[in-house]
Amino acid sequence: MPVYTCTTTTGTLTADVKSALARELSRIHAEINHVPSTYVNVVFHELPHGGIYTDGVPADPVLVNSWVRSGHPLDETTRLATEIASAVSRIANIDAARVLVVIQNSPASGAVEGGRVLPEPGQEQAWVCH
Amino acid sequence: MPVYTCTTTTGTLTADVKSALARELSRIHAEINHVPSTYVNVVFHELPHGGIYTDGVPADPVLVNSWVRSGHPLDETTRLATEIASAVSRIANIDAARVLVVIQNSPASGAVEGGRVLPEPGQEQAWVCH
Amino acid sequence: MPVYTCTTTTGTLTADVKSALARELSRIHAEINHVPSTYVNVVFHELPHGGIYTDGVPADPVLVNSWVRSGHPLDETTRLATEIASAVSRIANIDAARVLVVIQNSPASGAVEGGRVLPEPGQEQAWVCH
Repeated sequence: MPVYTCTTTTGTLTADVKSALARELSRIHAEINHVPSTYVNVVFHELPHGGIYTDGVPADPVLVNSWVRSGHPLDETTRLATEIASAVSRIANIDAARVLVVIQNSPASGAVEGGRVLPEPGQEQAWVCH
Repeated sequence: MPVYTCTTTTGTLTADVKSALARELSRIHAEINHVPSTYVNVVFHELPHGGIYTDGVPADPVLVNSWVRSGHPLDETTRLATEIASAVSRIANIDAARVLVVIQNSPASGAVEGGRVLPEPGQEQAWVCH
Repeated sequence: MPVYTCTTTTGTLTADVKSALARELSRIHAEINHVPSTYVNVVFHELPHGGIYTDGVPADPVLVNSWVRSGHPLDETTRLATEIASAVSRIANIDAARVLVVIQNSPASGAVEGGRVLPEPGQEQAWVCH
């Protein structure tokens, strides 16, 4: 269901770090948003130097954009963003100032996986076991 | 107006499949959301193996993210997501379980094309003919 | 805080144009949305020919997707989209018909930077000076 997209410049994250991040982001998301980790996708976009600018100059932040279904409690989404940002900083050994995490949402009714419309938050179990 | 972004690993979609998908996604979107297909954009991000993880391990899903203007009826958006997912699975010959389609939206008033603010849903004809 | 993602085919934007765009998008955003330009990120995704289709055929538009915090006045977001589109067309010397700017938003409470949850619109100064 969810998609985490991590955008960095090449070399910012090693292969081992990407693998560890994918596991940890899946674990955190599964715990807080009640989705089996089997449904968590993590994408890495690695751009050449000069592919990302901050304040108008080439930079090397880690930009994490996440899509989740609308309707999760706001305070849990805050906790999710906070834990994801902390995990990125810790696992990649990158100063927190260079890590931005944004969690976007749109209605489950406009998303399809496995040929079926996604469940509303709270209805995951019935959907998964169907 | 709309942008469909298909994210896969390299080799998941052949050149012919990408071309056929671009045509079919444009056709479906034009029919359901009442936008001339001339305004439908389809982007393909193809990442190296290890660029996408599902459940913490490298995987090869087809992740389709779409942006549309806010205000379309929810049931039509559900139909749009369902038909797009079905088309991807059929044209790319990929099991539906590996296909995720998410349709996000934001206000037309915050989008500009051809130098003009986009029309609200239902106002397309006047905008196009302007 | 904000992230502007410009998606084009390779060669559409020169290195000088990308650099100038990054500076100008940061300047415009800082002025209209009251965020220091030090927090504005601009990402360039450059895809091979055939990576972007419009109306089912390969094309070379400039697709700009922006994420901002929810809660900015709608009319200022319209002005932001309009000025960004105009800057892209002018700086890259590209016909306005090929430029699409979309400004998406989600709650500041679901976004973290520098280890801290982002401020609501209007609360930037206290957050920055903390």
